[in-house]
Parts: sequence; C-alpha cells; structure tokens
Amino acid sequence: MGLALTPSLSRDDDARRLDAQDLRARIRSGAHDSLTTGLAPGMVQLNLAILPKAWAGNFKHFCELNPKPCPLVSMTEPGNPIFPSGIGDDLDVRSDAPRYLVFCNGILADEVTDITKLWEDDFVAFGMGCSYSFEEALVSGGLSLRHIEQKTKVPLYVTDIATEPSGPFHGPTIVSMRPFLPEDAVRAIEITAKYPRVHGTPVHFGNPKMIGIDDIADPYSGAPPVIHVNEVPVFWACGVTPQIIVEHAKPPICITHKPGHMLITDRLNTELAN
Amino acid sequence: MGLALTPSLSRDDDARRLDAQDLRARIRSGAHDSLTTGLAPGMVQLNLAILPKAWAGNFKHFCELNPKPCPLVSMTEPGNPIFPSGIGDDLDVRSDAPRYLVFCNGILADEVTDITKLWEDDFVAFGMGCSYSFEEALVSGGLSLRHIEQKTKVPLYVTDIATEPSGPFHGPTIVSMRPFLPEDAVRAIEITAKYPRVHGTPVHFGNPKMIGIDDIADPYSGAPPVIHVNEVPVFWACGVTPQIIVEHAKPPICITHKPGHMLITDRLNTELAN
Repeated sequence: MGLALTPSLSRDDDARRLDAQDLRARIRSGAHDSLTTGLAPGMVQLNLAILPKAWAGNFKHFCELNPKPCPLVSMTEPGNPIFPSGIGDDLDVRSDAPRYLVFCNGILADEVTDITKLWEDDFVAFGMGCSYSFEEALVSGGLSLRHIEQKTKVPLYVTDIATEPSGPFHGPTIVSMRPFLPEDAVRAIEITAKYPRVHGTPVHFGNPKMIGIDDIADPYSGAPPVIHVNEVPVFWACGVTPQIIVEHAKPPICITHKPGHMLITDRLNTELAN
Repeated sequence: MGLALTPSLSRDDDARRLDAQDLRARIRSGAHDSLTTGLAPGMVQLNLAILPKAWAGNFKHFCELNPKPCPLVSMTEPGNPIFPSGIGDDLDVRSDAPRYLVFCNGILADEVTDITKLWEDDFVAFGMGCSYSFEEALVSGGLSLRHIEQKTKVPLYVTDIATEPSGPFHGPTIVSMRPFLPEDAVRAIEITAKYPRVHGTPVHFGNPKMIGIDDIADPYSGAPPVIHVNEVPVFWACGVTPQIIVEHAKPPICITHKPGHMLITDRLNTELAN
C-alpha cells in the first residue's frame, strides 16, 4: 500500500514535514512521550497494530474487508521495523510512537515508550488512518466540531454493525459521533467522502437505535454528547474498532499505540484526499 | 462555460452520441414532440431559459450565485441560437427541444414545438443541468428511487430557503425530495457531490419544517411521497426554481422548455462528474 504524492508542494509544506521529523526525533529520543493530539498540524497520524506474521495475513484481509473502521495506509515487511518510505523518512515503528500498549493473549500486560527490546523478527506493523485527518478537513471546511468546542473527548459507541470477519478477527464496529445541523452534515459527508483512507463517509446518521445504540447519552468512551435542537448525530467508523477486535482475537502478543499517542508521518493530510 | 471532456470514450459512448443526435434530429423535424424522460439514456438533458440580452446579465449572475438550483452548463452568445460546440454538435435552441413555454410579462402565453419564428437577435439561451443526470448516477450506484419504483413524478416543494438575489431575480428555492434509509442517504450525498453541475449535494435532509415545508404529504407538484419506516426525506435544489423565478421577474418575454421536454445534448452524464 502506498500513497500517491501530490506533484507540487509549497515551502510551508516542506516546513511542516521538517516539524514532523523533528517531533518524531524527540519522540524517538524519549523527550516527548505524551499525547500527539494537535501536534504536527496538517500531518497524517496513524493508528498502530503490531502482530506476529502468523496473524498478519488474516488481519490484512480484515482491513481490506472493513476499510471504514480499518483504513490501512501502510504496513511493514515481516521483521522490518521501518515503514515503506512512501509514508515517512526512516519511520521506525519500534521507537517513533510516544507510547505503546502491549497485550499478551488479549490482556493488557504493559505500557511502554519504546518496543525495541520486544521486537521480534516475525513482527508486522500496520498503520491505519485516524480521524484527526478528516477532522482537520472538516474544520478547514468551516465546520465546528462539538467535542473540540467543549474541550472533551469525542464520544464512542459500540454498534450492532458487524465487521466482516477474517480468521480470528471479528466483532462489532465502534463509531465516533459528531452532531451537526443537517446542512452541515451534508457538507461533512461531502468532505469525508474525499478521505476513504481515514474512515471515509459516516456509517449512519440520525437514529442511534438503528445501529444498536440504546442510549446516546451513555457513550462507551468519551464525554456524553451535547446535541443541540435540530442537530442530528452523525456516526463514523472509528479506529478503536481494530484495536478492540485484535485484543479479542487474543494473539499471543499484540502491540498497539496508546490511544492519542499516534505515529506521526511525513505525509500531509491533504495528500490522503482523493 | 464549457465542459471538460474525458480523454477516452468507448464505442458504446459513440453509439449513445449518435442516438442522441438522431433523436435531436427527429425533435427538430417535429417527428418527436413529447417527453424526453428516459430517452437517450446516459446523455445530459438540459433545462432551458431564454431571455432578452438586457435581462441576461442579471440572470447569469443569478445562476453563479445559486449553483445548486441553477447549475449553468452552457449559454449562447446574444442572438446566436446555436450552443457552443462543447455541449453538442449543431445544437439549435430554437428547434431542438420538443416543446417550449412562452411567457410574456410572466404570464404563460403559448406552448409551441419550435421558436424559430419568435427568435430575436438579442436573445440569450441558458442551458442548466437537470436531476435526470444525478438520478442516473444514483441508480448506477445501486440506489433505488422511490418515485421511479412507484412510477410517479418526484414530489417538489417550495422552501423558505431564499435564493441569492440578482437584479429582478429572487425568490424561494424549490426542492425535489427522495426518501432513503440513512446509510443510503450518505451514499446519495457522496454520489451527488460529484455532480455540482446537476444540482450537487442535497440542501437538507430530515426535518421538512426546518426548510419551511409544513406538510410533506402535500407537495407543490408531483405525487405525495411514500416514506417507509426509518427512511429520511432528502431534499435537492430543483431546476424548477429558476423557471419560477424568471416567470416572477416578469421579463417582457421569456421562453423555457416545457417541463420534462428537455434539450438533449451530446455530452454523457459521466462527463459532468468531477
């Protein structure tokens, strides 16, 4: 999987790339080990899942079957911790995310800032697009996001929309919710349609019960939503989906980024647009 | 205004063009003077408005200000009844639509099959995209349209969404409504986003009262809609808008196509897509 590069980039874009590389160097050195939310604006940040090769084929197929929750942007060759250069310069999955969660047989075993000592020569890393990219596009498009207005975390819900299974990987789609007036929801759908590699268009809007959400006021995670009169809740597939599904599949080992502590790439969000 | 042509076209596309030209020749000769609905499948059909040059500048600006209800695809030079070749080969606005309505000071004065004798050397013709094009794209995208299922006319409504005025041209946006399940509505928005020259994305979905429609069961024209459980009404700006607004502006003379009796071009609907 590679990224098509846009042919011409501005000096601002070059500066952004340098900022991203500088931030990544600080993360690699251990000088930055906290959230990446809002950092390296304009740059693609990736969700991570690292699995032994024996599990990687099924997981790759799972991503292909479920592009909305699992938009695969880049993956490594077995045993090679460096991502293909299309996504970044010398991007080492062992050290370049601020924090990692280590799951053994599906159980959280450790939280670390570097996985170099845990790396095995059959590990495969998957980098998946995250909603930061489309949220930036929504804001650039003039839309206001409630959870940013309210300085809260976006609410997530477990739905009854089953993912397409692949081997041991199966389970429900997790969604994030952002409320909009209908005309803004149309615009949000139009914008996210351009970003299939960061979850793409919503899976639903309007009636939470239609996708198995009994109580919109009681999210699985994040803050209870504030939905104004005439607004409709709009639901996008969320990158937490593969994380939970991988945990439930109980591989002997699985390493993910810690939520909010993403892998920063050298690609602009706008380069992900169709 | 011109159309960007796609670089390669199939033999089927050539055949479609020939079919369109053949149909237009029959319309020009008077052999076909009825509806064009469903004819020349795949080809762009245009809404028409013909105005004296003194009124044309304001109307062109009106179209530019209101691209959703008035998506201008092509217009003629004053006095020249032939559309620019980008939209069709020898496309004569005086004879190539099956039926025309003639309005004098905003009052319907006549219905004719040819306007050659009425043509003046200061007339300007405007060709605007129509929803037949995006409906074809929706059906190709696997969506079912209720008014086609039911073999009825799509319901139209007068909204309280004001158009942006230009000189004598002002008034409410008229919309057409198609009901969909939410996930299909998302898909419909995604598809119509690619067709800004045939009304583009919806102006609203969900709550008719939010756009000044008091009773969804009582359309301005067309059949009362059948909306199933869990479906939401989705509203697109409609090409009837400019027709009514031009009538209300009461120019000394204005000629339009008769609804459903459109100008068939040599352009494929797919060529209108972004």
